Amino acid sequence: MKKIMVIHGPNLNSLGQRQPEIYGNQTLEQINVQIEAEAGRLSCRVMSHQANSEGAIIDLIQGCPDDVAGIIINPGGYSHTSVAILDALLASKILAVEVHLSNLFRRDEFRQTMITARGAIGVISGFGVQSYLLALRYLANSTA
Amino acid sequence: MKKIMVIHGPNLNSLGQRQPEIYGNQTLEQINVQIEAEAGRLSCRVMSHQANSEGAIIDLIQGCPDDVAGIIINPGGYSHTSVAILDALLASKILAVEVHLSNLFRRDEFRQTMITARGAIGVISGFGVQSYLLALRYLANSTA
Amino acid sequence: MKKIMVIHGPNLNSLGQRQPEIYGNQTLEQINVQIEAEAGRLSCRVMSHQANSEGAIIDLIQGCPDDVAGIIINPGGYSHTSVAILDALLASKILAVEVHLSNLFRRDEFRQTMITARGAIGVISGFGVQSYLLALRYLANSTA
Amino acid sequence: MKKIMVIHGPNLNSLGQRQPEIYGNQTLEQINVQIEAEAGRLSCRVMSHQANSEGAIIDLIQGCPDDVAGIIINPGGYSHTSVAILDALLASKILAVEVHLSNLFRRDEFRQTMITARGAIGVISGFGVQSYLLALRYLANSTA
Amino acid sequence: MKKIMVIHGPNLNSLGQRQPEIYGNQTLEQINVQIEAEAGRLSCRVMSHQANSEGAIIDLIQGCPDDVAGIIINPGGYSHTSVAILDALLASKILAVEVHLSNLFRRDEFRQTMITARGAIGVISGFGVQSYLLALRYLANSTA
Amino acid sequence: MKKIMVIHGPNLNSLGQRQPEIYGNQTLEQINVQIEAEAGRLSCRVMSHQANSEGAIIDLIQGCPDDVAGIIINPGGYSHTSVAILDALLASKILAVEVHLSNLFRRDEFRQTMITARGAIGVISGFGVQSYLLALRYLANSTA
Amino acid sequence: MKKIMVIHGPNLNSLGQRQPEIYGNQTLEQINVQIEAEAGRLSCRVMSHQANSEGAIIDLIQGCPDDVAGIIINPGGYSHTSVAILDALLASKILAVEVHLSNLFRRDEFRQTMITARGAIGVISGFGVQSYLLALRYLANSTA
Amino acid sequence: MKKIMVIHGPNLNSLGQRQPEIYGNQTLEQINVQIEAEAGRLSCRVMSHQANSEGAIIDLIQGCPDDVAGIIINPGGYSHTSVAILDALLASKILAVEVHLSNLFRRDEFRQTMITARGAIGVISGFGVQSYLLALRYLANSTA
Amino acid sequence: MKKIMVIHGPNLNSLGQRQPEIYGNQTLEQINVQIEAEAGRLSCRVMSHQANSEGAIIDLIQGCPDDVAGIIINPGGYSHTSVAILDALLASKILAVEVHLSNLFRRDEFRQTMITARGAIGVISGFGVQSYLLALRYLANSTA
Amino acid sequence: MKKIMVIHGPNLNSLGQRQPEIYGNQTLEQINVQIEAEAGRLSCRVMSHQANSEGAIIDLIQGCPDDVAGIIINPGGYSHTSVAILDALLASKILAVEVHLSNLFRRDEFRQTMITARGAIGVISGFGVQSYLLALRYLANSTA
Amino acid sequence: MKKIMVIHGPNLNSLGQRQPEIYGNQTLEQINVQIEAEAGRLSCRVMSHQANSEGAIIDLIQGCPDDVAGIIINPGGYSHTSVAILDALLASKILAVEVHLSNLFRRDEFRQTMITARGAIGVISGFGVQSYLLALRYLANSTA
Amino acid sequence: MKKIMVIHGPNLNSLGQRQPEIYGNQTLEQINVQIEAEAGRLSCRVMSHQANSEGAIIDLIQGCPDDVAGIIINPGGYSHTSVAILDALLASKILAVEVHLSNLFRRDEFRQTMITARGAIGVISGFGVQSYLLALRYLANSTA
Repeated sequence: MKKIMVIHGPNLNSLGQRQPEIYGNQTLEQINVQIEAEAGRLSCRVMSHQANSEGAIIDLIQGCPDDVAGIIINPGGYSHTSVAILDALLASKILAVEVHLSNLFRRDEFRQTMITARGAIGVISGFGVQSYLLALRYLANSTA
Repeated sequence: MKKIMVIHGPNLNSLGQRQPEIYGNQTLEQINVQIEAEAGRLSCRVMSHQANSEGAIIDLIQGCPDDVAGIIINPGGYSHTSVAILDALLASKILAVEVHLSNLFRRDEFRQTMITARGAIGVISGFGVQSYLLALRYLANSTA
Repeated sequence: MKKIMVIHGPNLNSLGQRQPEIYGNQTLEQINVQIEAEAGRLSCRVMSHQANSEGAIIDLIQGCPDDVAGIIINPGGYSHTSVAILDALLASKILAVEVHLSNLFRRDEFRQTMITARGAIGVISGFGVQSYLLALRYLANSTA
Repeated sequence: MKKIMVIHGPNLNSLGQRQPEIYGNQTLEQINVQIEAEAGRLSCRVMSHQANSEGAIIDLIQGCPDDVAGIIINPGGYSHTSVAILDALLASKILAVEVHLSNLFRRDEFRQTMITARGAIGVISGFGVQSYLLALRYLANSTA
Repeated sequence: MKKIMVIHGPNLNSLGQRQPEIYGNQTLEQINVQIEAEAGRLSCRVMSHQANSEGAIIDLIQGCPDDVAGIIINPGGYSHTSVAILDALLASKILAVEVHLSNLFRRDEFRQTMITARGAIGVISGFGVQSYLLALRYLANSTA
Repeated sequence: MKKIMVIHGPNLNSLGQRQPEIYGNQTLEQINVQIEAEAGRLSCRVMSHQANSEGAIIDLIQGCPDDVAGIIINPGGYSHTSVAILDALLASKILAVEVHLSNLFRRDEFRQTMITARGAIGVISGFGVQSYLLALRYLANSTA
Repeated sequence: MKKIMVIHGPNLNSLGQRQPEIYGNQTLEQINVQIEAEAGRLSCRVMSHQANSEGAIIDLIQGCPDDVAGIIINPGGYSHTSVAILDALLASKILAVEVHLSNLFRRDEFRQTMITARGAIGVISGFGVQSYLLALRYLANSTA
Repeated sequence: MKKIMVIHGPNLNSLGQRQPEIYGNQTLEQINVQIEAEAGRLSCRVMSHQANSEGAIIDLIQGCPDDVAGIIINPGGYSHTSVAILDALLASKILAVEVHLSNLFRRDEFRQTMITARGAIGVISGFGVQSYLLALRYLANSTA
Repeated sequence: MKKIMVIHGPNLNSLGQRQPEIYGNQTLEQINVQIEAEAGRLSCRVMSHQANSEGAIIDLIQGCPDDVAGIIINPGGYSHTSVAILDALLASKILAVEVHLSNLFRRDEFRQTMITARGAIGVISGFGVQSYLLALRYLANSTA
Repeated sequence: MKKIMVIHGPNLNSLGQRQPEIYGNQTLEQINVQIEAEAGRLSCRVMSHQANSEGAIIDLIQGCPDDVAGIIINPGGYSHTSVAILDALLASKILAVEVHLSNLFRRDEFRQTMITARGAIGVISGFGVQSYLLALRYLANSTA
Repeated sequence: MKKIMVIHGPNLNSLGQRQPEIYGNQTLEQINVQIEAEAGRLSCRVMSHQANSEGAIIDLIQGCPDDVAGIIINPGGYSHTSVAILDALLASKILAVEVHLSNLFRRDEFRQTMITARGAIGVISGFGVQSYLLALRYLANSTA
Repeated sequence: MKKIMVIHGPNLNSLGQRQPEIYGNQTLEQINVQIEAEAGRLSCRVMSHQANSEGAIIDLIQGCPDDVAGIIINPGGYSHTSVAILDALLASKILAVEVHLSNLFRRDEFRQTMITARGAIGVISGFGVQSYLLALRYLANSTA
């Protein structure tokens, strides 16, 4: 059974109340339930963590056990500035997918620079919770 | 049965021989076979077109029959410059997903401006043929 | 009787359904009817063409018969990027006016670079179908 | 009878002697005569003012009587820098058209930023005195 | 009794009718009444002036009598471009506070360059009429 | 009695010894004493926290009890880069004021980009400890 | 006998009448005659095509028969914007030389970004018809 | 006897008290006395005006009598932004010299863009009152 | 005996496995052993800390005991963005040296902006573990 | 017999050992032999000079005897920065061709600004020693 | 008798033949004769040197005898790029004036960055040989 | 005994008198004495050269005898602009270290672009003469 680490970045714990016209009405708990259901269908095991701190996210990336097959990371606002998270992804040997709930290309100019995405195999942006589920499917099927 | 339009932009008909270290070894025909297989599993019907011309891509977007439920578009190099394709997507009432085989955020600076992506619900970049398959799955499940 | 060529660029054939809050509710056919009515009042003959392709627009500019007295061109999204259409206008000996339905200065930053406008005698932007009618009046009265 | 306010910005009182290869040979008085003649044909009444000062132009915009149906403004060099005139136009409830004698897109780089144009319904640039006459026609016919 | 000069820049005399969703519903007169009431509570005397012209604002700054203890200036649109007002503030020996009714950091990109603010002790932006009242309180309490 | 949360960002615990020519001689404790005194005068209750970590500041914003009426935040150096703190402010339903001890517009170029300020109702910059006291007064009087 | 494909981009069919002070007085037919004469001297066979459309140029590049030894391409105005033609050149296994009639470095700023040139072995710019003849000589002699 | 117009721009009437470490200790009156003394030595007649308003400076340029042989203009802070004063200088037939008391190249970045200088025959910057005297000498000797 | 604080920033705990072609094969422990050996030779005492969090690094800088004679800091990816760490270094009275294992000037564009370096006496970049040892030698010999 | 001056700029005397993957394996002597052989075939006489100093290159350009019919210049790294060499080329009456061994458009960003190329009739970049030979052929045949 | 060093930068030895529409018809010798004549009138002694090399210009600045009272430097094209000449001027204790024959503000964009001017007391640009004579007069009269 | 070449760039021969608040009070001779003393301690032999000319510095790099084990180069002002020195370093097979006396990151914006540093193994900036001594120590210990 493949193990997948899901890392929710800053402010994702506020989902549900946070600008629902952009991020939707679901809470992080509801999203995690959906991710786990999908993981069940795909015969994966998912571990989810949320952190508001850049350093804590780096710790989570570094702390992935050796048997983790993939990382799904939503770096939130750190996506646009964090060279340090990029470096953590580059240092890691685990396949990572960057996801975003909203389509960043439709938002503020400063949300269209994506530093951390260079450390991921690919990016999925704009599909709400489906961004996570599609990433999970990709990693479940991946043989890399 | 949902109908999905797949639009392959410029140079995608060269796949297989074109910079395989970036785009992989599959030909467009092989990719289309995989898309159709996945469509079958998802009970969708897929129509695929490739065009090298910006105007032809706009024609394809405009020409989608009313009963098409979604567009998967890989605008290739036009992604970075085409306000006209963006306008075609904005004018269309059909849900569109932009896909790229490679992770554009790991490539040339000029490939990181994404004009057309503002016309899509979301973007999937970097997963090879899986970029298409994930987009298909999203549209198949979408109720929007 | 003066002959005027009207060139409608990409996506103008979608008018009516396309973002009516920006472009209005009229279809291209309705706009052409108004242009022809005005042409009648101004004793001009109008030939209208629409093309989605940059190359086709260049063909239209190059293909203007010698007795055409003026070109009204709405380059749509190509206005912001097409050095090739600019070159076609510069190469042509016919007086050209660039028109836009919407006021580009109130829209996206990337819509405020106007490359093709350097090839026109002047620009009229923001008056809906009146942009065409004013251009027609200018060319009808022009002795250049 | 519709009343239209015409506001000529800085240096337009120098017309005739000022770089005639760019601005033509007519004086401001001759231009005003033509505007009034056209206004007569269109059954409008025109009030013309010229001011060299940014503040005086704002005063003119603010001071428009309630029964003025439209403003034709040539902000001259202030077009490229004046946030204050833009704010005056945005604050006004009267429909405004920005005009320029020359085609700004063929001139210096710094003349291609157009701040004040965001406060107008549209822009007409490059047709000499005809820029004013076309604007007048638009406002005369406008029902907004 | 401390004397405070209040300088309202361009378009502030249009308050009440001008984009009330941004600037609120109060007229300049109503704002001045509130400023004077607060001044009374703080045992200050306030002199208020409004000017649409950059030069007139410079005149007001230069013309402050020697016994003025502070300037509250809302440079409006000149805030973003006026090196000349900046120079007037730098030349003056009187403590100045720059105020804005709206939060400029939430508005157009070109409203986020603040040239004149370098000439003030500090900036208060975004609190409506309270921006003035807080500035007044600061100057009333200041011993500099 | 209104409750106000005061969040002091990175390095504010070094006040007193840190570049006193810029930040003044008072320690954070002395500043907090003044804030509390003013809160007493305004019949508010103030809770003050200092954090050096971006994540901890986000935690503080998220952790505000429901009965907090306002946040005073000095994001320090994070003001210029933190999309994540901006997102936390945007997600919060509590009215926030951003304050700075020094006038950022008189300092380094890179201190004049203010990302987090878009998440606040307004900004007060340059008045030393008075920046906090004015913010407190605004929130105390606010009925929003 | 080596086969060389010559691709003339947009507006080159207007040569002779188009801005002769920049592009010279020869028509495209006259240029092709000279290219063929030189090809004869160099024992090559030349196939020439002109296309105004970006997509058609990509088709020409893709459609080169396997026995073509080299491509001479004058991308005209597409040189400055076309990522799609660049991708076609990168995907092709045939040696390509980019040529321009005029010296682009002496012209408009926007003509000095050369996107497509990254897909060519080299660039020859500024020698009129000789740009083509020198490119032909290079390819005729090349053993790559 | 040659007539020379001297135009002192904004804030020059504050000289003497204004940042003397940059602008020196002399008042504008003292500077005018020196200019007139030098004019006497050079057999010129000098007319001096100071204006804080951009429009007033344009009026001064336009209002120069026909027998004025040269303009010495210190546009102060307008030097960096005023397209309108540039246009006034370009429209005038009188030879103009731009002067600055301080060396602008040693000052703020935003003082190193010099728009108005394009309208002058040359620029003299950095020599205090000598900047005026050298300009006067140039115009006195000029036969243009 | 001089005390030196060594602060290793984000991801340096991954050394050895992290992109060894850039950072070498040594682990952080091995690097610390070398630093301590060198410290022994230079009669210094070294305290080493590693932190992934920006805030924790600020805490380490602030927490340096009074008898620490120097700080060696490798801010890793925070070097390019952290105004907050810069402010911590500026607030500290202890001499600091910034070090990097790799030569940042040979790497990505975004790694060549060095914000934190303004807070250090100097920078040593590109010498692997020797960057630390040279910094240590400098601090050991420094009398500042 | 036409005389041609060949000017090899900085570091070209290191050819053969210098980054052969970019510049090839030939030494400058071997390149000069090939240039002379081609010159013999074209009935020209070639004078070759190499200089590492910007000033020496200017001296070479200025020092060309009156009977020199053309200059072939490879400005090496000075191509990207030297306004002074550009000025020397502009001041010279002799036809000049700029050549580069490598295709600069495939290399570092900072190698894509080409200042000196504005002083040449044209540019040939990317063909190794053939860049020189093609330039020679152009100048041999030129009648300008 | 004051001694003044005149340093003519690159290409000034080509004067007379070099773009006379920009630089005039006089040769450097004729200019030096005029400078010496003026020096005679001003009771100064002038030493003139011309150098094409950046390094030689630095040598000239460094080599000024102790009794030289002023430097007049025309850095030509180095004005826009040479940090090294700027550093030489900053290191020198002698008062320097930068001069240019043409008005740089009317020329190419890249000629409007003036690095070396930061090392001079002031700049005189645009007056032909008079630029030198005015600089000489300034230095002759200077008591600094 | 290892041989090390030390190359002092422009203006370093002025040390001692040149802006001592930035560069310290030592002359180049005193610095060379310290370098030689350290070389003696490290059993190296040092050859020192100073040159003001970019070309001469390239000559020095190229002219390094085969048995030189390392280059210490302080390119001074050329560091920020010289592609030609960068190319010389890249062409050389000898290990090079770039040094600067001052911390460039604390100085002018234009001193923070470091072109030549890409040709060095690493950079040491800000430690005065210690920058050289640390570089010497690195090269002395280096086995590369």
